[in-house]
Amino acid sequence: MSKGKVCLADSGGLDTSIILAWLLEEGYEVVAFMADVGQEEDFEAAEKKAIAIGATKYVCVDCREDFVKDVLYPAVQVNAVYEDIYLMGTALARPVIAKAQIDVAEKEGCFAVSHGCTGKGNDQIRFELGFYALKPDVKVIAPWRDPVFFERFAGRKDLLDYAAAKGIPVTQTKSKPWSTDENQAHISYEAGILEDPDTTPPKDMWKLITDPEDAPDTPEDLAIVFEKGVPVKLTYTEAGAPKEVTKPLDVFMAASNLARRNGVGRIDIVEDRYINLKSRGCYEQAPLTLLRRAHVDLEGLVLDKEVRYLRDQFVTPTYSRLMYNGAYFSPEFDFIKSMIGPSQTSVNGQVRLRLYKGNVIILGRSSETENLYDPTESSMDELTGFSPVDTSGFIAIQAIRAKKYGEAKKAKGEKLTL
Amino acid sequence: MSKGKVCLADSGGLDTSIILAWLLEEGYEVVAFMADVGQEEDFEAAEKKAIAIGATKYVCVDCREDFVKDVLYPAVQVNAVYEDIYLMGTALARPVIAKAQIDVAEKEGCFAVSHGCTGKGNDQIRFELGFYALKPDVKVIAPWRDPVFFERFAGRKDLLDYAAAKGIPVTQTKSKPWSTDENQAHISYEAGILEDPDTTPPKDMWKLITDPEDAPDTPEDLAIVFEKGVPVKLTYTEAGAPKEVTKPLDVFMAASNLARRNGVGRIDIVEDRYINLKSRGCYEQAPLTLLRRAHVDLEGLVLDKEVRYLRDQFVTPTYSRLMYNGAYFSPEFDFIKSMIGPSQTSVNGQVRLRLYKGNVIILGRSSETENLYDPTESSMDELTGFSPVDTSGFIAIQAIRAKKYGEAKKAKGEKLTL
Amino acid sequence: MSKGKVCLADSGGLDTSIILAWLLEEGYEVVAFMADVGQEEDFEAAEKKAIAIGATKYVCVDCREDFVKDVLYPAVQVNAVYEDIYLMGTALARPVIAKAQIDVAEKEGCFAVSHGCTGKGNDQIRFELGFYALKPDVKVIAPWRDPVFFERFAGRKDLLDYAAAKGIPVTQTKSKPWSTDENQAHISYEAGILEDPDTTPPKDMWKLITDPEDAPDTPEDLAIVFEKGVPVKLTYTEAGAPKEVTKPLDVFMAASNLARRNGVGRIDIVEDRYINLKSRGCYEQAPLTLLRRAHVDLEGLVLDKEVRYLRDQFVTPTYSRLMYNGAYFSPEFDFIKSMIGPSQTSVNGQVRLRLYKGNVIILGRSSETENLYDPTESSMDELTGFSPVDTSGFIAIQAIRAKKYGEAKKAKGEKLTL
Amino acid sequence: MSKGKVCLADSGGLDTSIILAWLLEEGYEVVAFMADVGQEEDFEAAEKKAIAIGATKYVCVDCREDFVKDVLYPAVQVNAVYEDIYLMGTALARPVIAKAQIDVAEKEGCFAVSHGCTGKGNDQIRFELGFYALKPDVKVIAPWRDPVFFERFAGRKDLLDYAAAKGIPVTQTKSKPWSTDENQAHISYEAGILEDPDTTPPKDMWKLITDPEDAPDTPEDLAIVFEKGVPVKLTYTEAGAPKEVTKPLDVFMAASNLARRNGVGRIDIVEDRYINLKSRGCYEQAPLTLLRRAHVDLEGLVLDKEVRYLRDQFVTPTYSRLMYNGAYFSPEFDFIKSMIGPSQTSVNGQVRLRLYKGNVIILGRSSETENLYDPTESSMDELTGFSPVDTSGFIAIQAIRAKKYGEAKKAKGEKLTL
Repeated sequence: MSKGKVCLADSGGLDTSIILAWLLEEGYEVVAFMADVGQEEDFEAAEKKAIAIGATKYVCVDCREDFVKDVLYPAVQVNAVYEDIYLMGTALARPVIAKAQIDVAEKEGCFAVSHGCTGKGNDQIRFELGFYALKPDVKVIAPWRDPVFFERFAGRKDLLDYAAAKGIPVTQTKSKPWSTDENQAHISYEAGILEDPDTTPPKDMWKLITDPEDAPDTPEDLAIVFEKGVPVKLTYTEAGAPKEVTKPLDVFMAASNLARRNGVGRIDIVEDRYINLKSRGCYEQAPLTLLRRAHVDLEGLVLDKEVRYLRDQFVTPTYSRLMYNGAYFSPEFDFIKSMIGPSQTSVNGQVRLRLYKGNVIILGRSSETENLYDPTESSMDELTGFSPVDTSGFIAIQAIRAKKYGEAKKAKGEKLTL
Repeated sequence: MSKGKVCLADSGGLDTSIILAWLLEEGYEVVAFMADVGQEEDFEAAEKKAIAIGATKYVCVDCREDFVKDVLYPAVQVNAVYEDIYLMGTALARPVIAKAQIDVAEKEGCFAVSHGCTGKGNDQIRFELGFYALKPDVKVIAPWRDPVFFERFAGRKDLLDYAAAKGIPVTQTKSKPWSTDENQAHISYEAGILEDPDTTPPKDMWKLITDPEDAPDTPEDLAIVFEKGVPVKLTYTEAGAPKEVTKPLDVFMAASNLARRNGVGRIDIVEDRYINLKSRGCYEQAPLTLLRRAHVDLEGLVLDKEVRYLRDQFVTPTYSRLMYNGAYFSPEFDFIKSMIGPSQTSVNGQVRLRLYKGNVIILGRSSETENLYDPTESSMDELTGFSPVDTSGFIAIQAIRAKKYGEAKKAKGEKLTL
Repeated sequence: MSKGKVCLADSGGLDTSIILAWLLEEGYEVVAFMADVGQEEDFEAAEKKAIAIGATKYVCVDCREDFVKDVLYPAVQVNAVYEDIYLMGTALARPVIAKAQIDVAEKEGCFAVSHGCTGKGNDQIRFELGFYALKPDVKVIAPWRDPVFFERFAGRKDLLDYAAAKGIPVTQTKSKPWSTDENQAHISYEAGILEDPDTTPPKDMWKLITDPEDAPDTPEDLAIVFEKGVPVKLTYTEAGAPKEVTKPLDVFMAASNLARRNGVGRIDIVEDRYINLKSRGCYEQAPLTLLRRAHVDLEGLVLDKEVRYLRDQFVTPTYSRLMYNGAYFSPEFDFIKSMIGPSQTSVNGQVRLRLYKGNVIILGRSSETENLYDPTESSMDELTGFSPVDTSGFIAIQAIRAKKYGEAKKAKGEKLTL
Repeated sequence: MSKGKVCLADSGGLDTSIILAWLLEEGYEVVAFMADVGQEEDFEAAEKKAIAIGATKYVCVDCREDFVKDVLYPAVQVNAVYEDIYLMGTALARPVIAKAQIDVAEKEGCFAVSHGCTGKGNDQIRFELGFYALKPDVKVIAPWRDPVFFERFAGRKDLLDYAAAKGIPVTQTKSKPWSTDENQAHISYEAGILEDPDTTPPKDMWKLITDPEDAPDTPEDLAIVFEKGVPVKLTYTEAGAPKEVTKPLDVFMAASNLARRNGVGRIDIVEDRYINLKSRGCYEQAPLTLLRRAHVDLEGLVLDKEVRYLRDQFVTPTYSRLMYNGAYFSPEFDFIKSMIGPSQTSVNGQVRLRLYKGNVIILGRSSETENLYDPTESSMDELTGFSPVDTSGFIAIQAIRAKKYGEAKKAKGEKLTL
């Protein structure tokens, strides 16, 4: 008799296939689950394999549109970034997948969920905190943290032996000396030879973005229109013909294609995992690099200075840290998320950009509805609506503390220095 | 009889020459002052001109080394940046110049200082707050905010007429349709045709940095060594021969040359002036772009995660905002400055980089002295010194709040969504 | 012919009566305006006086309910406080008054507004920033900053002479050696003998709150119910009979009366004005002291820890600073205000308190709807739903950085000390 | 043969005596350790008991002076406070004790340390993170998280049975229905009947501070002198005679005695443990309440406004959260600690206070060395060194954004409201 139904996040790779077989051996019934978040994947083959191993059912959920609208665009609105440079392609996908997996678990009557994440990474945390918030009574089976499992499968040979014994087909393609995670926002590379942070990644590692050196010699121009901080239109030229896309997923994919073919969006960093280990990662984050840059630029034109400063100091880093740490479904993240909308009401306008061999070059920006920028007012040559004498007063008030500080230093026999 | 000595910041340009003549006419004695902060300038011609107009003396102070050591390197240490992208080349030079001008004023017995800044910009504030802190009893003469002056010289024609009347030589070179400010950290372009934020700057505006499209087709590699966050060695290859520089100014200038010739460091933004106006600026900030990027990368390897987060959320934006707003000589800036050193004790190591047509590509990083990164520990394949079971406990504790949140939502009949 | 209509904020005191007369003399038509924000005031006498001097009309707007609902309760929700202790009774009233004055100005067809604030205080800024945001084309007449006015009325004698000449009645009550500002949230005392910060205020200065030494010897108990952080019910006992109030203004006034008669809410501070001067103020802030204390206590029971921390570090101080500085009608304040609601959804419950000679003592708190506190779970004696082994894992993950830090110190020959 | 030496933090109570016996039974040699941090304790009896049970040695370290100088005074300097009201008396003592215990462990050649903390509290974390940083190779034995131990001793009866079997004397005093932790900064009460957060603590629970209702009817005045934010002199009157104390420990103890006898420093809260549980605690925090209040008041007079704001928003809450969470010996705490000194250079002066039945009333404050407060300058009646016209300019610059905001709202057909 079954110990109950488990919904397993099944990538179709060796590890999760072994886990599937092991869960069956342990007496569970298994529903194999996969989320389509835009990764390159043979879903049919994965289904066939899961069923062959013994899964009761295979469910693949297409999350691509939700991913763009509910997570990626808010991330663009808030200029999300972790440790200065990582746009969090992996972290952003996790809540979408966790939500879809719990939905499947509930629909299929599973009391537990399972995944193949290792015990040292961020993803186990991101998934499981999501699971517990979405379904507080769920049981999580994390084989790579269960001594019964990880002591039995201590090396790759143990996995292969078990696969052979269970008749699980093993892909014969030589495995790459690093691991990857892909979705429509990015691909990551880590582990293996990348663990030496001074080793330059080999040219053939990079998969999605054209090497800047190989990118076209002719720049490509485009324009992105934002409404309340969300990209709603992207126009460019292809084969001499003007193109325009406006559906959320289309805009995102067009941004992705344009950035990829022009070498935009590769990074290589050593980052801090939530779990207090540092790790080296390389990422190809084409669409977010382009959209974030355009969004930041437009904000210069249309976002109030103080709102921007408050948002930059507080909302952006907090949002980013919580997202990275897997706190998407938490009171604090909901609190932070509620601040995005109010910060973006005026972020309406268009940015024109040029892409060239890895560069995102701003050509100009404009807004038909917002009034914060006024060339006449800013002009050094104009005195309209503004008396230079006002500035004297402004400085005089600021100078009160400056003078006192200088006097205090003098009184104490100290000197202000550079 | 003289109304007293005034120390005038004299760029040698039309405006300050007129101001010099006008101060003399007003009955002051004038000491002309210029700071060499690395700008392209004919100091001899400026001296000759100032003396010809009637300055008692001309003093040029070489601030280049102090500028690098006391201001630019701390800015690198703290990853200073304003509104996401502007590295504040202009703002960083102001305290150095203000300090030098007050030193000259005190040495020469001047009771007042004067400058040619307009009444709508940031620089007047930066200079004057510095003046008042450094010499609380100083009198500041700001002609462009004095109705007597600005009403008399309401247009360029008034200036030219006055110059003719006073015999002040006017350079016949056609004036550019924008204004610039240059020093060894950067050059800025603003005003004129740039006041339309949707106008793309003409190709021939850019002066210091090679257009990425015209930069060499062959990448150039270099390595930068940091000690306590300060770049202390830069190695690269020139004409096939290895080069190494270690003196502060040399390292900075080598970084500048390498970045400039490879198209690194151009930006175009709409920024928020302290004075609550938005303004459009284009900047070529070659050396800071390169050094900042390398510094940020090294921090990934050697800086504690929590120190970094605290520094990033608090010190960097506060330092940057205060610097931009001209608060260098203030209690709050001294307070923030005191945090840079303690954040950088572990920032020791080397970053290897590649420059290519506007791209700064990280090739690798290493440290001989710091221990935060440990490939074995981070490796997903190793369990050394770390039990995956620990992570279960870590997640369980984090999950307490996650479950409660899910339960609370359920109890209130609400649903967690993306 | 009139130069146009001016709406003057007329307190009925000497200064504003003089200003009224002066505005008439300058050729304006004047609408006298007063806001009832709960201050002790003879509105009829003020009206009579204004009309006698020559005002076209006198308009008094009752703002008491709006003040409580729209400003004071949000301030309670966000635990507003300036410089650790000042609950900002004056600042909180300003937007209410500014809004009412602009409404009157618009209704009465006034092109300008005027006030009697001095040139060194916060209030001029608070009023005027409100005026400009609410009616960007308004003209503001601030006589105490207009040399024509302040040079003419350089001392009290000048004011009295002018009053005599114009037939303006002057109250013969000996003026107090300090100035005050009162509304239903508080009364302030400043200037005069209080300008020496080491002078203890005389016992007879304090007006609203019973001296703790004179307060009843018997404590008084009460209970306050909050919904979404807003006090919605207050119960207490009076003359042996249970009392219950639930209307916003009633709850506020009951809290005020209870706190006042039990000596709760006096403070004495040196604070920083927006205008960069320090100033000494004494305040009686009875109702806000009591409500804030109860609200903070309830949050301990029902507010998520991380939401609280984020709100405390960011929202509360930013809200308070902006409110103090008069930025109520600004993009950044609207942004911050939008964060209050989302932080308070769970702040539902009751706090029981005891008032005794200046003390606010918490007796207990409870919530029927929120689940964050669970005595069984917290109990050291219970292991329900929680394995102590989990904590070992939690500590192990935290210890990764601790050990590395200890090792790094050892490796560098340094020692960790207290 | 011994499994090695363990240094056990031995309070002399039932739990740690059982642990001592159990460690011996497990084959360890035990050095019993106790820190004197000012708690009421019979150290001799504890020693006798430990030796009787079988400890090799008993070491009591007097930490009282270090506690005051190295931890409590920095906490006063930084105005440390957790969740608005808890002054963290327990948390502050932990690093002092951990440091002393590791010192003893190293001196006595112990490879391990042990403690009797439960698995749900904060203290286990505070101690252990300290242990690991101070001695990264230390082994920590935490019996209450070890299933072998906690399953054996599942109830109080098991402990008593074991005590009887091992001949461990058990105090016959009826145990209180709550637990306490005491040191010279405070005493805490939690658990037992206090677990119901709506239960008012019984009058006889409170031990150190006189009930405000029972405190003297006559106020008591005192004065505290601070140097760089540290209290260095306290003067008061006792039995009609002036008293003055200046040694760090003496000042602290005098503050403690004065506050205790006047009913100052009791609180009752529900707080958030690091471990994500809420818990109810009552605290008597007499000396820190008094010293913090005086320190905050003096800062109003002598601390620059912007330094204060930065410190308040960033340093104080971060310091407090890290301290509460046990991160004292960590890179981030060292970073934050380095900011205290630079914030306190000007905090020099005297505060005069009155204590009365639970109230701390400020009588006045003064400084002989600092110049930030200038009564003439602040005076509304004086125009010295300050032109009211300057304020007009200051407001005009601030009003630029206010007007734009009002205009933008109008243009969009929206209205600014309260």
